[in-house]
Amino acid sequence: MNTILVVGSVGLDNVKTPFGETREALGGSATYASYAASFFSPVRMVAVVGDDFPKKHIATLEERGVDVGGVEIVKGKTFRWSGAYEYDLNEAHTLATELNVLEHFRPTLPAAYRKSDFVFLANIDPDLQLSVLDQIERPKYVACDTMNLWIKTKPAALKEVIKRVDFLFLNDGEARQFTNSPSLVKAGRILQSWGPKCVLIKKGEHGALMFEKNTFFAAPAFPLEEVYDPTGAGDTFAGGFIGYLARQEGGVTETLLRKAVVHGSVMASFTVEKFSLERLTSLTPEQIDARVRVLKQLAHFDLD
Amino acid sequence: MNTILVVGSVGLDNVKTPFGETREALGGSATYASYAASFFSPVRMVAVVGDDFPKKHIATLEERGVDVGGVEIVKGKTFRWSGAYEYDLNEAHTLATELNVLEHFRPTLPAAYRKSDFVFLANIDPDLQLSVLDQIERPKYVACDTMNLWIKTKPAALKEVIKRVDFLFLNDGEARQFTNSPSLVKAGRILQSWGPKCVLIKKGEHGALMFEKNTFFAAPAFPLEEVYDPTGAGDTFAGGFIGYLARQEGGVTETLLRKAVVHGSVMASFTVEKFSLERLTSLTPEQIDARVRVLKQLAHFDLD
Repeated sequence: MNTILVVGSVGLDNVKTPFGETREALGGSATYASYAASFFSPVRMVAVVGDDFPKKHIATLEERGVDVGGVEIVKGKTFRWSGAYEYDLNEAHTLATELNVLEHFRPTLPAAYRKSDFVFLANIDPDLQLSVLDQIERPKYVACDTMNLWIKTKPAALKEVIKRVDFLFLNDGEARQFTNSPSLVKAGRILQSWGPKCVLIKKGEHGALMFEKNTFFAAPAFPLEEVYDPTGAGDTFAGGFIGYLARQEGGVTETLLRKAVVHGSVMASFTVEKFSLERLTSLTPEQIDARVRVLKQLAHFDLD
Repeated sequence: MNTILVVGSVGLDNVKTPFGETREALGGSATYASYAASFFSPVRMVAVVGDDFPKKHIATLEERGVDVGGVEIVKGKTFRWSGAYEYDLNEAHTLATELNVLEHFRPTLPAAYRKSDFVFLANIDPDLQLSVLDQIERPKYVACDTMNLWIKTKPAALKEVIKRVDFLFLNDGEARQFTNSPSLVKAGRILQSWGPKCVLIKKGEHGALMFEKNTFFAAPAFPLEEVYDPTGAGDTFAGGFIGYLARQEGGVTETLLRKAVVHGSVMASFTVEKFSLERLTSLTPEQIDARVRVLKQLAHFDLD
């Protein structure tokens, strides 16, 4: 079993959807990714919070077995995000972002973390992603995620990150924005040409496209009757993916990558069923397995 | 091999996309559906055109083996549609619709057509769809398609059609509009409760969801580098589907339905590569088979 290092944001979210709203809920890219990954592999988390951060949230992560030794608690306010979703839930409208303690965060990895087999650079300032990469000793596999903000404000730093990772996650809008290509197939190929062996374009309720060396994988999403709150779905997807990948001892094969994508997709389908980590905190490995099997059945077709 | 009766519109289209434009091109729901279906099964086509309709378009259909004995040529102008697509190509913007001879069309089936095994009621006024259904003697299988216009203007007649078919096609926006449900899974179940055994919700480049008796099928779309013109994609999908279904002598099983959906999806992926029927007219059965196999490979994943 490999160890995963996750770096990213931890925050308190105010989210409003047509179905309800939540305030000061546990959120952030590192939170969702670490929590999801920990269902499959041991996770070490690197992040920063302010001294206003509720202890119960740290406890939530610890109860799942996440190693929070890399979560710094510094004087000041925790990162906060406020967002709203319209009736179709496809796009988050950011109402407010307060970086707070995230603004001056310069992660220093604990010595034990420098040897981590798998690294997931969750969505955060690409300069921070680079600084973490510089501190890691020869990881086996590095994946990263990002968002429209960094594509717009720090494209050069982001390209530098992308050049150094094995696997890149982004969503369909971001892929189009970054490559100036309306075609996702072209966008995926362009992104691959910038460095990563694989690119995964997330399409929300429509699944995902993974671009591998010579082919690609059209991954289904688990069709849900109700999507309650999409916040964290992408981070959960990535966490489930990297967790599943890290659990296997052998090399990263195409077959394994596809299985990992399916597990990521299923993990994300749980997150969106409730606010914050509410659904994930009651999730069991048996429920994950069962939904993966149902998804296989829903997506399967024979030709002969 | 079963015979398919297709009724729907035949028209001349003006289409503008970011990649070019075409004028007075062969179009219409019955045209695309019949042409696509004829790759798999014998097709009889019921439609109306004006005396301005170019003979070469009739020849195009006849060369594919479509029986055009049910295409009436009446005095007046052929149905015309003008539409435009934005850069993302996801939504057609109708610029003009001239019903012309379609306005007073009352289809009377040739005697030989009244015994048809499979019937596809392509998108057209639901009152016409009903009148065709009334003239058919005990068909084995009936499918229908529709559009937002009829959902808005003739919901009662459309529900009457839906009650009498085995299989209903519509796209995601139409499914949401008709059922007032933002969730496609719920929308599919609601539509099923109105009568049809199966409902297929088309999602364009994102594939389709087929709701069967107790389960559903998340069908992939063939990912294309370039989509040139989406006009007729839905009609082609339905035509490929019903054609494939009709080719098999046995009963309509779930396995067969899934294969038929995949074939419809692949047929649609060819249509959008060029304007009008340009790509379909050069298509070969070998190219269809090859793309179906690639799609299987792109969508496949193993669990164990």
